[in-house]
Amino acid sequence: MGSQAKTAAAPRRLVILGATGSIGASTIDLVERNPDRFSVVALAAGRDHAALARLARSLKPEFVAIRDEEAYGALKEALAGTNIQVGAGPEAIVEAALREADLVVSAIVGAAGVEPTHAALEAGREVALANKECLVCAGAPFMRTAERAGIRLLPMDSEHNAIFQALGGADPATIERMTITASGGPFRTWSKEAIEKATVAEALKHPNWSMGPKITVDSATMMNKGLELIEAHHLFGVPAEKLDVVVHPQSIVHGLVSFADGAVTAGMGAPDMRVPIAHCLGFPERMAAPTPRLDLAAIGTLTFEKPDFERFPSLRLALDALGAGGGLPTVLNAANEIAVQAFLAGKIPFGGIARHVSDAIEAAIADGSAREPSSVAEALTIDHIVRERSRAVLAA
Amino acid sequence: MGSQAKTAAAPRRLVILGATGSIGASTIDLVERNPDRFSVVALAAGRDHAALARLARSLKPEFVAIRDEEAYGALKEALAGTNIQVGAGPEAIVEAALREADLVVSAIVGAAGVEPTHAALEAGREVALANKECLVCAGAPFMRTAERAGIRLLPMDSEHNAIFQALGGADPATIERMTITASGGPFRTWSKEAIEKATVAEALKHPNWSMGPKITVDSATMMNKGLELIEAHHLFGVPAEKLDVVVHPQSIVHGLVSFADGAVTAGMGAPDMRVPIAHCLGFPERMAAPTPRLDLAAIGTLTFEKPDFERFPSLRLALDALGAGGGLPTVLNAANEIAVQAFLAGKIPFGGIARHVSDAIEAAIADGSAREPSSVAEALTIDHIVRERSRAVLAA
Repeated sequence: MGSQAKTAAAPRRLVILGATGSIGASTIDLVERNPDRFSVVALAAGRDHAALARLARSLKPEFVAIRDEEAYGALKEALAGTNIQVGAGPEAIVEAALREADLVVSAIVGAAGVEPTHAALEAGREVALANKECLVCAGAPFMRTAERAGIRLLPMDSEHNAIFQALGGADPATIERMTITASGGPFRTWSKEAIEKATVAEALKHPNWSMGPKITVDSATMMNKGLELIEAHHLFGVPAEKLDVVVHPQSIVHGLVSFADGAVTAGMGAPDMRVPIAHCLGFPERMAAPTPRLDLAAIGTLTFEKPDFERFPSLRLALDALGAGGGLPTVLNAANEIAVQAFLAGKIPFGGIARHVSDAIEAAIADGSAREPSSVAEALTIDHIVRERSRAVLAA
Repeated sequence: MGSQAKTAAAPRRLVILGATGSIGASTIDLVERNPDRFSVVALAAGRDHAALARLARSLKPEFVAIRDEEAYGALKEALAGTNIQVGAGPEAIVEAALREADLVVSAIVGAAGVEPTHAALEAGREVALANKECLVCAGAPFMRTAERAGIRLLPMDSEHNAIFQALGGADPATIERMTITASGGPFRTWSKEAIEKATVAEALKHPNWSMGPKITVDSATMMNKGLELIEAHHLFGVPAEKLDVVVHPQSIVHGLVSFADGAVTAGMGAPDMRVPIAHCLGFPERMAAPTPRLDLAAIGTLTFEKPDFERFPSLRLALDALGAGGGLPTVLNAANEIAVQAFLAGKIPFGGIARHVSDAIEAAIADGSAREPSSVAEALTIDHIVRERSRAVLAA
């Protein structure tokens, strides 16, 4: 009662899942700059209890959840003397996701983000989606839940957010082609032989975006674009044959929609994750954000080229998995994640990532485990089986 | 009764004003490719009675109108034996505009297009606007009529159409910046001295667009971009200080909208007028059009640069007139049109176009004739006075 909004509208109540990661940090940066516009009701994180406690003391949510149960004591102690409730373990993350809120920001990285995000959707919450696995690993059942709940997912990823904006509410059935751009990553101009032997340090040098190591390696293999095409397929209901990638090293144009009359709309912006995050936080309105402004005359030149499937076989694997459908995208994603871990741990060469993914897909086809998952739980089971198998194969 | 539509929806009834011009030809090309989708109820043209008669025999409208009254007999004779009614003179053009229709395509070039388009709006007709003078010469009163009629104008010009698409229904109040692109015209890389002495043949060599001679010369002076900013101001209700031009020689990105969160949406397409025309004809749906498809990888490079007001003073004059408001845009447009005629007739050098416009604006400020027009009729009166004065000064 003492905290009435100063603006006309009531503050938007947010749950932030993945509060201590890079998307979480950018989200919280924007929230803190607009204190009258937002209130944070719950925060969730994986392991970093100290960072989570700091955020909680500043943002004053009702509830914080940490996935690592061993961190419960430290978190509870750090929040002693506050009214903030504390939970730990996977079910506490789901509890955070289900708090009464106007928007759930789903920014937990990896398969751990799927269950809480799905629970929020089932409960009818609006969801801004940064987690990739919801759509890559469990796309069809996940989208069925969104449809049943009548929720239009807000994509927080820059490419999908750009396409969402470029669509401007157009009926996806009127789309002739949907294109996401790829920076081409650090190896865009490298030979196939050089890429094969690229080091971890070389793979982590992304030219435009500042992201976590898993996503940065995916950018170097271009698997990230394959995963994004799979996401786009589910998010926008566009069939595989209408989806396309164009390499655009400057990362200024993020996504394009081509219509039957020849018109093309594009979503653009400086390569700063706060642009799509601010769009989701403000939607359907627009909020002011201190992001760099796009100045095309200052940039001068934008270039575009076709992707090279020969040097970047992961992209071809993802397109083939999307085209074949069934559980193959789930298999592809799980095998890739373990292969990237093995590469980062120095256990396989860079070129071994795509080879492992290809092998894992063949194995799944051979033993029939690449069936279409009928539920999110079944998709997570396939994901789990493939990961275990990949870990065994790669000793990762 | 014998002509029931084969598609689910009834055919869209069109009036085409300016049927024999280049926009008219492109419109009719699309209509003829979609015979079940459209029916043409009236056609209007200026002088070319033979072309108009040919179109009428093919499209079978109820009514055709020709502005040149001396062409009445020839047109009537050419349509003998048909049921098509024939009219001549300016009031017949207005009659065509007022025929019962679902969309009026306003593609008469010049001030002659203002009255019939305004009449169509007053009668509550949807209007797809290709005529520039409606907004440049009579913008404020014209838009008041549109607002009273509850009509959202569909812009047929490629730049404004691109912005309309990039807006995607967004509230113009949320816009931070609205940018139209300019090819830079044939003199983009020329020195100030060379531009001053450019010949008519040189000015008519436009690098990207195939247009009439008046508009092509406006592209060479870059006055066309100034006029387009004035149009954008009225069409989208965006103040002068939020409007911008960027030079983009490839003419692939036509218009951009920048929002407060840093996101930018863009309207793009191959430089083919049938793209925006098809968008307007299909709106709010999309129709298939045989336009070239945009292939960014094949194009390879898009470049952007700031416009140079020193070498292209007409652009600065237009921006100043827009900023000062009142009747100055009306004066600017009328003086420019006569100066371009004088240049095309070999009476003044290329550099003399901007000098004459500048002189005409100063004269109008000095004698008080640059007042804000309170009605479309008053705007047309200012337009007429300035033209007469310019003709006298330039002996054009």
